[in-house]
Amino acid sequence: MKDNAKKSVKIIPLGGLEQIGMNITAIEYDDTIVVIDCGLAFPEDEMLGIDLVIPDVTYLKENADKVKGLVVTHGHEDHIGAIPYIENEINMPIYCTKLTMGLIENKLKEHNNLNNVKRKVVKHGQIINLGCLRIEFIRTNHSIVDAAALAIYTPEGIIIHTGDFKVDFTPVFGEAIDLPRFGELGKKGVLALMADSTNAERPGYTQSEKTVGKTFDNLFADNREHRIIIATFASNVDRVQQIINSAYKYGRKVVVEGRSMVNIIKTATELGYISIPDNTLIEIEQIKNYPDEQIVLITTGSQGENMAALSRIAASIHNRITIKPGDVVIFSSNPIPGNEKAVFKVINELEMKGAHVIFQDTHVSGHACQEELKLMYALTKPKYAIPVHGEYRHLKRHAELAVEMGVKKENVKILSTGDVLEIGENTFKVTDKVVAQGIMVDGLGVGDVGNIVLRDRQHLSQNGLMIVVVTLEQGSNQVLAGPDIVSRGFVYVRESETLMDECREVVQAAIEFCQDKGITDWGKIKSTIRDSLGDFLWKKTKRNPMILPIISEV
Amino acid sequence: MKDNAKKSVKIIPLGGLEQIGMNITAIEYDDTIVVIDCGLAFPEDEMLGIDLVIPDVTYLKENADKVKGLVVTHGHEDHIGAIPYIENEINMPIYCTKLTMGLIENKLKEHNNLNNVKRKVVKHGQIINLGCLRIEFIRTNHSIVDAAALAIYTPEGIIIHTGDFKVDFTPVFGEAIDLPRFGELGKKGVLALMADSTNAERPGYTQSEKTVGKTFDNLFADNREHRIIIATFASNVDRVQQIINSAYKYGRKVVVEGRSMVNIIKTATELGYISIPDNTLIEIEQIKNYPDEQIVLITTGSQGENMAALSRIAASIHNRITIKPGDVVIFSSNPIPGNEKAVFKVINELEMKGAHVIFQDTHVSGHACQEELKLMYALTKPKYAIPVHGEYRHLKRHAELAVEMGVKKENVKILSTGDVLEIGENTFKVTDKVVAQGIMVDGLGVGDVGNIVLRDRQHLSQNGLMIVVVTLEQGSNQVLAGPDIVSRGFVYVRESETLMDECREVVQAAIEFCQDKGITDWGKIKSTIRDSLGDFLWKKTKRNPMILPIISEV
Repeated sequence: MKDNAKKSVKIIPLGGLEQIGMNITAIEYDDTIVVIDCGLAFPEDEMLGIDLVIPDVTYLKENADKVKGLVVTHGHEDHIGAIPYIENEINMPIYCTKLTMGLIENKLKEHNNLNNVKRKVVKHGQIINLGCLRIEFIRTNHSIVDAAALAIYTPEGIIIHTGDFKVDFTPVFGEAIDLPRFGELGKKGVLALMADSTNAERPGYTQSEKTVGKTFDNLFADNREHRIIIATFASNVDRVQQIINSAYKYGRKVVVEGRSMVNIIKTATELGYISIPDNTLIEIEQIKNYPDEQIVLITTGSQGENMAALSRIAASIHNRITIKPGDVVIFSSNPIPGNEKAVFKVINELEMKGAHVIFQDTHVSGHACQEELKLMYALTKPKYAIPVHGEYRHLKRHAELAVEMGVKKENVKILSTGDVLEIGENTFKVTDKVVAQGIMVDGLGVGDVGNIVLRDRQHLSQNGLMIVVVTLEQGSNQVLAGPDIVSRGFVYVRESETLMDECREVVQAAIEFCQDKGITDWGKIKSTIRDSLGDFLWKKTKRNPMILPIISEV
Repeated sequence: MKDNAKKSVKIIPLGGLEQIGMNITAIEYDDTIVVIDCGLAFPEDEMLGIDLVIPDVTYLKENADKVKGLVVTHGHEDHIGAIPYIENEINMPIYCTKLTMGLIENKLKEHNNLNNVKRKVVKHGQIINLGCLRIEFIRTNHSIVDAAALAIYTPEGIIIHTGDFKVDFTPVFGEAIDLPRFGELGKKGVLALMADSTNAERPGYTQSEKTVGKTFDNLFADNREHRIIIATFASNVDRVQQIINSAYKYGRKVVVEGRSMVNIIKTATELGYISIPDNTLIEIEQIKNYPDEQIVLITTGSQGENMAALSRIAASIHNRITIKPGDVVIFSSNPIPGNEKAVFKVINELEMKGAHVIFQDTHVSGHACQEELKLMYALTKPKYAIPVHGEYRHLKRHAELAVEMGVKKENVKILSTGDVLEIGENTFKVTDKVVAQGIMVDGLGVGDVGNIVLRDRQHLSQNGLMIVVVTLEQGSNQVLAGPDIVSRGFVYVRESETLMDECREVVQAAIEFCQDKGITDWGKIKSTIRDSLGDFLWKKTKRNPMILPIISEV
């Protein structure tokens, strides 16, 4: 088989580097493609009005007969968020652990396509056969429970994909990462390691999730007389468990607020991933029946998201919770780069209303730091290293670390989205590139907003627009009505009537110019109007609104 | 005098808390107002298309005869940036130290109003008389040289305003902050301290600027074989001096790139605040005459600003500098909250092109940390504390620190913009509020963009627009032309022709409905069109473009 060039193993990231978060990778051999994860990316700042970005799976559709299944490492949005969209385009059976499946099923239900998708829950340690590939799920730790690494058995050797992982020797729920199994595979021989790069810039080890529980206990002890509000990531079930533990210990009732938080806790409870003592959870309406010092509110909004519960509370537009002096608000989170300003805005608002905000030492990362990554290399001793998950700066630092750990420099590769990496005992090169850029979703529209629309939104957002309407007589091109000028997002018109009058004169002159020159082509008339009005406005205001001349004919 | 209630001292922040950066405070007594600083704020994210925000000085204009002068603490944008605008509205003589004046004069020149403004350079230690107030300039340290604190002698007592400051015992240029003078004033008795809160959340001391010089030396020693590019704040003259020192020591030529960097270095050199050895500075065109290892490029763009030199270099759109593998790029800066994502984007781009980016340990803050603030309180022993400069969370921490340092809790106040604080031996309360919100500048327009315009820009940016044009016959209201539909920033029209056809039908039906009902009022016809088309589009696309019906009459 090995001498058949067509039958090498291919690794094809269909998202990732260019759209951080859109994690999806195809592993291909012969008649088999297995897809790892299927995440969504949140829009970049310049993607105005876009809700989310999903992968372009043209390559999978073109090879639909080969696609044997989707294996998912864990239940975060950047690994499962695009599933309902992509399952509409290409039907793939889904394989993953129980909680991950629960969260995926919630999504499929929301999109009304639960029943169309074949699903199978897999346990850690279990191996599944998908075409000519075999996939083993290996227990890891992460900031969501039930995370798995994947060992992919190919005819060329074993490829290990860690998913997002950390090493937590004392996890809150379940067991520590299955380090012995990674060691065992290392002894067998690992062809390639695809490991999480998120924290590759950070030296040392990531702390155990349990350390946060101790901090909560201390904070609860220090603030016995105050209401406590804790914002954290909805999906961090272990974090929520620890808050509930502290609440129970200190005799407080727990209220959960924020849609995603409520949903995930519900699913996690049903599936047995969280255990809540009787009479601990109360409904938000019941808060009034308890004194402040007997309440803990767990809420979304730890990233300062505009419409999340905590942001609404801070802005005094939440209909059930009002901040009072003395309230203690704990951010059990770090701001994701880009969210700092929004988070600080919420903190300022909370403090202005008299809350005491606690921001430090109440979060640990879910990703491996340098020493944990080194441990992973030491156990698996891969021939090739393909850093995954992270921005380029993280991938690059990870690549350097792989070399420090003994992988040959030429055996380490940072892949771009769409790269086709062929890999085997004696092969390790990018041989092709497939179409794989992100597809923008806006409302119900998938892919109907492209660069032209975004450029227009950008232009409108910065400068507003000016519409010029003229009605011309058919044949003669005489002006029957107008020019009328309508502007939006440009200046406050009531205070700029003179400017509007001048604009009308400029347009009038442009039309007369066209008539004098015998110009009858509407396109030319429009561009003459656009140019002269644009020049006039730039000189007058140093602004550049979008100018839309519209001609009607009667 | 003291028993005349009208003659109390008033402290009125006309910017600051609500618009971070817009530092301007009026100190008033009897017939005298002295203005401290006159900065601009950069627009908040939601201020689409706005270039900058300047203070509303209505209060000063209403009391123009009282305004005796503007005293400026240092030359940063957030303290001097609004001067050219405000001097157009109210002519105030300016008093400040030499470098600060040089930078202000550059601004006034750009706005062509240098000759209209009276200016006087003041030395540290000097006292000036402005009406019935006397102002002493006291040497401080900051991330720009020639910074001053102000002691304002009022009939009620001495008010100390620190400006932005840190304590640097070993400054690069000039002398350390005049701590003895603060002590002397403390012994005389200080009525109120208005001190910098920026770093009030940080424990310990801010490091000396000189420590960065040592780091540069080490980095130059470690990277003898590579070209070095260093991005930093244009105004940090001492930082630039230290880079030049290291360059000279290691035999490199220095190139300066980025307009603001070039301007400030020019001014600082002319005024003697920076000293450049002969034959060290070269023009950017001369780079090609030297090998890489003999070049240091000092550039703007340390905050990832879109159009700054480093961002253009990283994006390969700079016309003179191209990144090569091996280049060492040093960020001698920390990202200001909100800029993290932009900075990381530039770093990723640089590293993709093979540069080695150094990001840590090459910056120190220009603001006092907690121990320095405590030192300021220990020396001045003020009766009242009014924390200034910073977000609310900083001001609040500072307020707590003032109490820890012995100021009575009721004698500490965080002021909002426009608050009129009356202060005296036995008075310390906010007695009034003046109009003082920021004024937005867009192009040449000052204040002509308000909330309605911004809301429209916001709406357009997220959803685009749809224009409906109909020509009606005068009197009969019969449709003579249209409805024509033009959309921008909504969908890519060529691929959505069916949708556009459907929209036309919806509008047609709306117009017919109006005709059937005998509705002739244009306002009602327009709102009927807007509502039916809006409903249709929301159902069809879950999007909400701005809909602009335009009716012409012939």
